[in-house]
Amino acid sequence: MTSSQDSLARLAAVIESRKIANGGDPEKSYVARLLHKGPDAFLKKVGEEATEVVMAAKDAEYGGDKSKVLYEVADLWFHSMIALAHFDLTPAQVIAELERREGMSGLEEKALRKAEARAEQEKGSA
Amino acid sequence: MTSSQDSLARLAAVIESRKIANGGDPEKSYVARLLHKGPDAFLKKVGEEATEVVMAAKDAEYGGDKSKVLYEVADLWFHSMIALAHFDLTPAQVIAELERREGMSGLEEKALRKAEARAEQEKGSA
Amino acid sequence: MTSSQDSLARLAAVIESRKIANGGDPEKSYVARLLHKGPDAFLKKVGEEATEVVMAAKDAEYGGDKSKVLYEVADLWFHSMIALAHFDLTPAQVIAELERREGMSGLEEKALRKAEARAEQEKGSA
Amino acid sequence: MTSSQDSLARLAAVIESRKIANGGDPEKSYVARLLHKGPDAFLKKVGEEATEVVMAAKDAEYGGDKSKVLYEVADLWFHSMIALAHFDLTPAQVIAELERREGMSGLEEKALRKAEARAEQEKGSA
Repeated sequence: MTSSQDSLARLAAVIESRKIANGGDPEKSYVARLLHKGPDAFLKKVGEEATEVVMAAKDAEYGGDKSKVLYEVADLWFHSMIALAHFDLTPAQVIAELERREGMSGLEEKALRKAEARAEQEKGSA
Repeated sequence: MTSSQDSLARLAAVIESRKIANGGDPEKSYVARLLHKGPDAFLKKVGEEATEVVMAAKDAEYGGDKSKVLYEVADLWFHSMIALAHFDLTPAQVIAELERREGMSGLEEKALRKAEARAEQEKGSA
Repeated sequence: MTSSQDSLARLAAVIESRKIANGGDPEKSYVARLLHKGPDAFLKKVGEEATEVVMAAKDAEYGGDKSKVLYEVADLWFHSMIALAHFDLTPAQVIAELERREGMSGLEEKALRKAEARAEQEKGSA
Repeated sequence: MTSSQDSLARLAAVIESRKIANGGDPEKSYVARLLHKGPDAFLKKVGEEATEVVMAAKDAEYGGDKSKVLYEVADLWFHSMIALAHFDLTPAQVIAELERREGMSGLEEKALRKAEARAEQEKGSA
């Protein structure tokens, strides 16, 4: 049986193996090519895929196929994982961070704190 | 022991419970508020958090703290999961899609195919 | 003598002439191709170019060439103008809207009003 | 009579006057606040407003009010101009750059050249 955890870890391992230092070949591998081109290449893709998630979601909202949203989120997460790999970070650490927030003070603690801080700040300066 | 899979599934369940139909209270919960405001509210956050990933990554590239990248990717995934929940989609499905791509014809099959298709098209029309 | 107003109007006219209905040829023209592919094609570019502005600005902030910021803002405005053309809108209307805001109640009226509204809302619900 | 060029130049002058060094007050002015907070504050807005352009355009595509696209492009250009001001760049320079591209070798020269370069590169490495 394969768990999702295994899937993300295995995907991260494949991305790791595509680093030039690990023998990845930019001529043969899309991931190796992005990693070889450097941060701007995969960061641009993160921005692009986020835009595609937004467009697919709007389409789904107007009756379009919602599985498109799924594919675009998969693309977004995939390219985020290339960025993580570049900085020697892992999806397991991202998930641990999400879990930490949830465990610490409820899932929404951080987001609420940020919203409150911004509300205070904007109120003060308006 | 808690697996990453469990973490994502639990996080998805908490988000699910914040839907207004499930008793979520926009006055008390950040997630309920975003879900209540509707797609534009959380889609805007997806775009915003993608931009923050890009900025944190550029900072890290110039010597900044790379854990900031981790936090911003966590924010990006978190808000993506709110979008998924809105469409009754789950992170398990996103991971299954990533696995499917990997399993079907290698991790990079889809990305390469898209790149080739675009290259063909642009070459033809230049 | 050529004013900037003339420049934007002339650029808008060129984009207008690239519409398929006006004889634009997707095989020969980049703009015609984007317009022919439809909104997702140029909207994706808007998201992509915004990301490139952000990256160029971060580079400039760390000592890089700030003229890169100029080029990326030009790309962003250029692709925004393709979106405007698709909806039969013009840069003159965008500038009139900016002028209206400035004239009505000072340049920052709208932005401040939005910030206040959000601050109120977030404060209320935190 | 007021030309668009005058409008953009005047708007740029107002933004310039909001710099802290020029007496801008972050407590009273939205622009001064963004400039005072530093690049991440207004760059995040550029990303956010680009996302709002995309959402408004999708709405307009499905029958929504296209004047919303106009407002969002105005917001995007406005926040781009704050970024330009931070780097002592002006909208006149952006327009000159757009004009230069058009004048040099036709409006679409640069975009086409980039598309061709990318097509070549991707073809080679697929």
